[in-house]
Amino acid sequence: MKILRFNGGHVGISDGRKVVDVSDLCTSSPADWPPVGINRLIRDFEALRPRLQALLDTEPGEPIETVRLETPVPWPNKLMAYPVNYHDHAKEMASRGLASIQGYFLKSNSSLVGAADVIELPALPGREIHHECEIALVIGKEGRQIPPERALEHVLGYACLLDMTVRGKEERVFRKSYDTFTPVGPWIVTADEVPDPADIDMKLWVNDELRQQANTRDLIVDIPQMVSIASSASTLYPGDLIATGTPAGVGRVVAGDVVTIEVARVGRMSIPVVQGTRGANVVFAQPYEFVRAQ
Amino acid sequence: MKILRFNGGHVGISDGRKVVDVSDLCTSSPADWPPVGINRLIRDFEALRPRLQALLDTEPGEPIETVRLETPVPWPNKLMAYPVNYHDHAKEMASRGLASIQGYFLKSNSSLVGAADVIELPALPGREIHHECEIALVIGKEGRQIPPERALEHVLGYACLLDMTVRGKEERVFRKSYDTFTPVGPWIVTADEVPDPADIDMKLWVNDELRQQANTRDLIVDIPQMVSIASSASTLYPGDLIATGTPAGVGRVVAGDVVTIEVARVGRMSIPVVQGTRGANVVFAQPYEFVRAQ
Repeated sequence: MKILRFNGGHVGISDGRKVVDVSDLCTSSPADWPPVGINRLIRDFEALRPRLQALLDTEPGEPIETVRLETPVPWPNKLMAYPVNYHDHAKEMASRGLASIQGYFLKSNSSLVGAADVIELPALPGREIHHECEIALVIGKEGRQIPPERALEHVLGYACLLDMTVRGKEERVFRKSYDTFTPVGPWIVTADEVPDPADIDMKLWVNDELRQQANTRDLIVDIPQMVSIASSASTLYPGDLIATGTPAGVGRVVAGDVVTIEVARVGRMSIPVVQGTRGANVVFAQPYEFVRAQ
Repeated sequence: MKILRFNGGHVGISDGRKVVDVSDLCTSSPADWPPVGINRLIRDFEALRPRLQALLDTEPGEPIETVRLETPVPWPNKLMAYPVNYHDHAKEMASRGLASIQGYFLKSNSSLVGAADVIELPALPGREIHHECEIALVIGKEGRQIPPERALEHVLGYACLLDMTVRGKEERVFRKSYDTFTPVGPWIVTADEVPDPADIDMKLWVNDELRQQANTRDLIVDIPQMVSIASSASTLYPGDLIATGTPAGVGRVVAGDVVTIEVARVGRMSIPVVQGTRGANVVFAQPYEFVRAQ
């Protein structure tokens, strides 16, 4: 089953052809702020599942191509990310002295957008902005200190995720947290449709050029271990997102490009890149060393 | 005015003597999950202010010493933090090669606790865990690319914040995001009660020993500039928290300690430190270089 948000904050489910509005089942209204109704649907998913399946089997719904898809979980407790997590990308970055796998970092919730949105490049003259192709895990069940062998019980499903990054030596979290820098979507696919999380193919194209291609079998820290490490420090809540790292092939995008990500059995989305006028600040305006060790 | 959460998720206001429950004014119930009612009170604060003041003037409320204070904003859009932001601490860290001020990083929402809670040290034998004394800014008004001269219009108020940290070379966000590692409280004091944000005293004691003492006049990046930098990258939402950095004097805490933070005109809170049994993971179990550049 696919779980999604659409048309200005409605919560829906889909079989890939039609969308059925289930906002009422998580006491969610498009007018709600903050938009956390889907967090409740995720929390209650296993209990609601028979009812959701019955709705999907009987309701006419709306054809999926007629709705505007939004990022599935716009306000999680946290959006975690693992750096450099494929053997080939680790080699690529190590040659530049950047490889390190030492727990999770975070991206801001406000960087999340969905399949129908755009990536807005900040106005940072001379800076390269790179795509990173990733798979997102969506946590379904609260937990702390989850052992790897029980980790998959806490994973509700998967989504495509783009981790956009301004390259440079400034705070990585800051360089990765620009508005629109974390497209996630087009929906969440529940874990039952992804039989082996250690064998998921993913690809990323910029326009027609295949730039990244990998399989989760090449992860350095695998999916169960990622859930285990994150939960050793932090209670994981339903709706929490984990970006699982990117393989080799990261590269620059410019305005006018279209970035397409495809994750096998999960989905595919194409996001246009546009040039924004915002994003300037004193940090990027100065040489890196300007405030170092005053 | 003080804005707070108490007794299992009630939203309240206080004059420092009594607490008046205003959960209804932000359609908030203690049973709500996720707990985001106070985010709405913060968003609507200026419009509600006369009504809130009238309630505070007329309702008997509950004596503040009889309620259990909780962290004011448990589920912000984001909990931002500025590293090494006082001249003396920058010198202290620079001698160890650690100084850098290059935008914000993030801590996990799940690390937030309140004035009546404890700091739980993770079970990481041999690791030092340090206190960092900070002031939290609470964003009141949504904004992006806010110029420094308008930044204070977006600040609803201030709170005490402890930024607890496991020292080491692993991901900083991970080392700072353990559950209980961000005590914030005891409440939010609205900005009208803090006449000059460039002149706020703060102190931190471990047991009876004064360890940190500073004034915001010694900030490297001042409060308006912090709001401006953060908002250059990210839309700031009502309830967002910004930890403004720590001065010199960071140091170790051990189980049995009590950490007390006092911010002038804002408040004071004392948090006991206890030893937990959780927190172990393969990252901290291995030498730092174990996965580097495989």
